[in-house]
Amino acid sequence: MPISECRIRRRIAFHEVDSAGIVHFSWFYRYMEEAESALWRAAGLRIAPSRELAYPRVAATFEFKKPLRFEDEADVTIEVARIGRTSIGYRCVITLNGDVAALGSMTIVCVAGPPGAARPTAVPDFIKERLTVVS
Amino acid sequence: MPISECRIRRRIAFHEVDSAGIVHFSWFYRYMEEAESALWRAAGLRIAPSRELAYPRVAATFEFKKPLRFEDEADVTIEVARIGRTSIGYRCVITLNGDVAALGSMTIVCVAGPPGAARPTAVPDFIKERLTVVS
Amino acid sequence: MPISECRIRRRIAFHEVDSAGIVHFSWFYRYMEEAESALWRAAGLRIAPSRELAYPRVAATFEFKKPLRFEDEADVTIEVARIGRTSIGYRCVITLNGDVAALGSMTIVCVAGPPGAARPTAVPDFIKERLTVVS
Amino acid sequence: MPISECRIRRRIAFHEVDSAGIVHFSWFYRYMEEAESALWRAAGLRIAPSRELAYPRVAATFEFKKPLRFEDEADVTIEVARIGRTSIGYRCVITLNGDVAALGSMTIVCVAGPPGAARPTAVPDFIKERLTVVS
Repeated sequence: MPISECRIRRRIAFHEVDSAGIVHFSWFYRYMEEAESALWRAAGLRIAPSRELAYPRVAATFEFKKPLRFEDEADVTIEVARIGRTSIGYRCVITLNGDVAALGSMTIVCVAGPPGAARPTAVPDFIKERLTVVS
Repeated sequence: MPISECRIRRRIAFHEVDSAGIVHFSWFYRYMEEAESALWRAAGLRIAPSRELAYPRVAATFEFKKPLRFEDEADVTIEVARIGRTSIGYRCVITLNGDVAALGSMTIVCVAGPPGAARPTAVPDFIKERLTVVS
Repeated sequence: MPISECRIRRRIAFHEVDSAGIVHFSWFYRYMEEAESALWRAAGLRIAPSRELAYPRVAATFEFKKPLRFEDEADVTIEVARIGRTSIGYRCVITLNGDVAALGSMTIVCVAGPPGAARPTAVPDFIKERLTVVS
Repeated sequence: MPISECRIRRRIAFHEVDSAGIVHFSWFYRYMEEAESALWRAAGLRIAPSRELAYPRVAATFEFKKPLRFEDEADVTIEVARIGRTSIGYRCVITLNGDVAALGSMTIVCVAGPPGAARPTAVPDFIKERLTVVS
């Protein structure tokens, strides 16, 4: 059965907090990617690049609604929003105690070929058998 | 004379490159912020939070066009795209040898008040005297 | 009852891995600090700087024995090795499936006073009641 | 003519500063590595792993003397302290306006062979022709 979403709980580390006392915005993109890695693991897949395939990010966005602070335990939920011919689109919501802290999106593309000359390639069947768009 | 844009040259460090051999996408948001800091410095301003004012990010986006690699020297250009009542919007382009590597945007808001209870406040005049929308 | 040590399990994130396919060495210092934060939480303490007290690091070392890779689940154990008049020393061992990946140490100092003019101060009793040197 | 040392000037970025308003200690190890990359570049070498050789870190230490803050311009000097059969040792000093902020050391080892089964190998002659121990 393919899956569509995954949620991880993520405790905020001291080194992720900036001098305003809140998580530096660059970290939200990493939290989103950590949830994506967990989604792929839960689906029996592995997001790491191999000799045959890699999944570079082609776009990523976040809107920041409420700050996260040291030792907060945030919930990071990612869901598959689209599967195109060569790309996969995600939506992400990060909450703290049920309140939305941030809303994100990310698009990745499947590429094949040697580093430096990789080209987009169709999303392989073994991925489409395990990940599906959220209904 | 207010200014509208700033360009920095940024050499890619080893620790910014991921296992696919390219700069991890989370770094582009930091490069954009480094260019913003340089823009504010060039304007005689300081982006760091003070007791009175802070400038949290409320949105940031990037589209990734071409990868950056270890020791590349990228050019990061940021420009002021909008100044609203309480917010400032930027556009950012990152190039390598003239080729576009990534296109970004970021919106910040001016807030005043104690940490945890800061509220949006009008962009102060001392900022509007030094930063202006690109023409 | 004061405590002396804490262990956390830490899954390696994609963005922590460098182009050699192994965790970048700078991350081990952050893993050690994450274990320290967990130790203090378990002791009912908070390592974050407050208006009165802060705990800057004055030394940190690591020897790296075996690499960690993406999705590995490492165990990070920290223990209190010394409590001096104004400082606390830790030892840290990071293992993967029981094999030692890295051996670390860290010394922090208690400081009081305004930012920029903080001075070492005696380790407060409320800390010594909750943290004790490993026997 | 082989060289022994290199100095870079490094401006502190906002995202490198923690909630105590000072550079997070994990960054000093990265500054040291950035200076090492510059040293190798100046020597006509490249520290990045290749198919044949890689240079994992086997130890790194820092003592922290004075904090660095946002927008400070620190000088990071690295020098070759030892060249062993398979390893290279560095010393590093980081200063701000001539005052020592931190003292570091790092040891790397040359390894050859496939990822996961790389073994220490003698420091190649092409490196020893370009890097030499400081006198």
